[in-house]
Amino acid sequence: MIRDTILGTEPYVPGRSIKEIAKEYKLKESEIVKLGSNENPLGPSPKAVEAVKHETKNMHRYPESGLDDLKKAIADYSETRPNQIIVGGDGADEIIDLLGKTFIDPGSEFIVPLPSYMYYEYTLRPYGAKPAYAKWDMEENTVDTNSVIESINDKTRLIFLCTPNNPTGGLIREDDITRILESTSALVVVDEAYFEFAGVSNIKLLKDYENLLILRTFSKAMGLAGMRIGYGISNPRIIDYMHRIKPVFSLTRLSHVAALATLSDKDYIKKSIEFSIKSREYLYHRLSEMDKLRVLRSYANYLLVDIRETGMNAGQLVDELLKRGVIVRDCTSFKGLDEYWIRVSVGTIKEDDKFIDALKEIIE
Amino acid sequence: MIRDTILGTEPYVPGRSIKEIAKEYKLKESEIVKLGSNENPLGPSPKAVEAVKHETKNMHRYPESGLDDLKKAIADYSETRPNQIIVGGDGADEIIDLLGKTFIDPGSEFIVPLPSYMYYEYTLRPYGAKPAYAKWDMEENTVDTNSVIESINDKTRLIFLCTPNNPTGGLIREDDITRILESTSALVVVDEAYFEFAGVSNIKLLKDYENLLILRTFSKAMGLAGMRIGYGISNPRIIDYMHRIKPVFSLTRLSHVAALATLSDKDYIKKSIEFSIKSREYLYHRLSEMDKLRVLRSYANYLLVDIRETGMNAGQLVDELLKRGVIVRDCTSFKGLDEYWIRVSVGTIKEDDKFIDALKEIIE
Repeated sequence: MIRDTILGTEPYVPGRSIKEIAKEYKLKESEIVKLGSNENPLGPSPKAVEAVKHETKNMHRYPESGLDDLKKAIADYSETRPNQIIVGGDGADEIIDLLGKTFIDPGSEFIVPLPSYMYYEYTLRPYGAKPAYAKWDMEENTVDTNSVIESINDKTRLIFLCTPNNPTGGLIREDDITRILESTSALVVVDEAYFEFAGVSNIKLLKDYENLLILRTFSKAMGLAGMRIGYGISNPRIIDYMHRIKPVFSLTRLSHVAALATLSDKDYIKKSIEFSIKSREYLYHRLSEMDKLRVLRSYANYLLVDIRETGMNAGQLVDELLKRGVIVRDCTSFKGLDEYWIRVSVGTIKEDDKFIDALKEIIE
Repeated sequence: MIRDTILGTEPYVPGRSIKEIAKEYKLKESEIVKLGSNENPLGPSPKAVEAVKHETKNMHRYPESGLDDLKKAIADYSETRPNQIIVGGDGADEIIDLLGKTFIDPGSEFIVPLPSYMYYEYTLRPYGAKPAYAKWDMEENTVDTNSVIESINDKTRLIFLCTPNNPTGGLIREDDITRILESTSALVVVDEAYFEFAGVSNIKLLKDYENLLILRTFSKAMGLAGMRIGYGISNPRIIDYMHRIKPVFSLTRLSHVAALATLSDKDYIKKSIEFSIKSREYLYHRLSEMDKLRVLRSYANYLLVDIRETGMNAGQLVDELLKRGVIVRDCTSFKGLDEYWIRVSVGTIKEDDKFIDALKEIIE
């Protein structure tokens, strides 16, 4: 009865909640420093908080489906037009799912350089898509463009290029993206979830390339990870087809007003980006001073750290940090990385210091 | 590049927003009576409003993925166990989508008696599923069980039985459901979105039938349509497989706390159900008095009305009602209904009266 594709998948193991972690490690929830999920250390925009509180009286009403005002605001923010935009109600993850519905037939392929965001594969697997793994150059911390181009064949439907790349933090150069765009008629999905922290975007390529879609989110610089708002930007034809199969009401009423209010809060956006960049640079320098660690240069709001010289693997180190109330990401489950990498999100300077202090206590 | 299945779909036409309707018909937004979407006239639970306001400070944090506390609360409410429950973050619509991923291969079939909820077909179409239409008996206002059983073949994967049925309001008898369950190994999806207003559920059948899944929502009796919370209840094996491919973070943080708070607010739930039933019976009697209308008996929070004796079709009548500030549903787009049906949701008694007054002005 259940499809073979699904019978062959592994059970999903959800991350433990803060409550469970607090209980297991005998910590107060409020003391735990959360540097595991690349969230915004500044919290949400006060204007978003206010807008959401005001809208609670309408929680019994269905959301709007057209989202015209939000598309207009996103178009202004991204210097595109509203008919180039599709908004997802489960963050950018919903847009990835829509890409599966729109482009993947069973047996077709998608390309992802490893390591990168694992959710592409998780989402596309039920559609019967086969991953073709290209390479991320860990030394240069950028994509190995030739490996992507060599992976293209007539079954290729989607190519994912994450820049800044999660979890490595490195950028993909514009001329590498255009080389890939020109090598295929498949859709090239440039994931700019973290672009605000790098200050560079590939939006301008949309005018020259029909096979480009840019993926973005309100979960990072916009401080709304819990509200699940993402968007895709492409040419109007592709966006129109995606709208034909999009879940009609997936964006909650409160997410809608939160997104609008945040986009209107220019001060918050500016402060949010500056704050995370400052914290990233601070953390980078503190970690670089530690002999047993190798930190990759990052253009995002997290840092990838090679910990093999500590004599511990990531699972062990993450556990020791948890005992001290600090959550970071064990990267062992990222395909393309071995068991000696952790990813740490930027926090407030105080949270960064707590992490550094705990780390020193463990490895020095 | 775009899949053939998608190229063949019609563009989606979103419903007009209240703002657009107000502008077009020169009305104040606050004056418009919304009886088109089967929402809860009572508004959300005050406890849910309070819980959401409190949680706004955490909007920058990802939602929890396990939702253990919510599954526990739903299990208590539905007299099942947490491992029988899957929670969707786009209402029950997300569960329907997961059913597509879990059970539909291209070319396989699903059965739906017409008229019924149109979203099953909208959601399953991109998976390459073919609808097989059975019949809803409009005279008896219940399913034509034989027509369902006759539609079963070896390609059938899902059978949708909506009870109370949207848009007709009629119930499916338990012995008809068991006859269908025993006629197939396909999954029978019993959609109980409106069960609270009928006071009957088919949960108890789960212990005897492996091929049953019950679909429910927080959008109706729970007053949270804007927050997009739904759930499926089935045997643990099916629920486990669905969890393997479920979007990990699709339920927003605020939807999570709103659902928990509403389930804890027993007074609200009781009042909400009683209120809608009272309004439904009131509306039924008022409409029954009008010679040119035929109203179907309903066990839900809406009424289906045959308007052909008025000399107008539903599009014309809905437009006249809009001019008077009342939104009801033109059912012409429901397959299996012609252009002479409207569906009206229950409102407050004051809203019901405004609708009746407008209707009288138009047709008498």
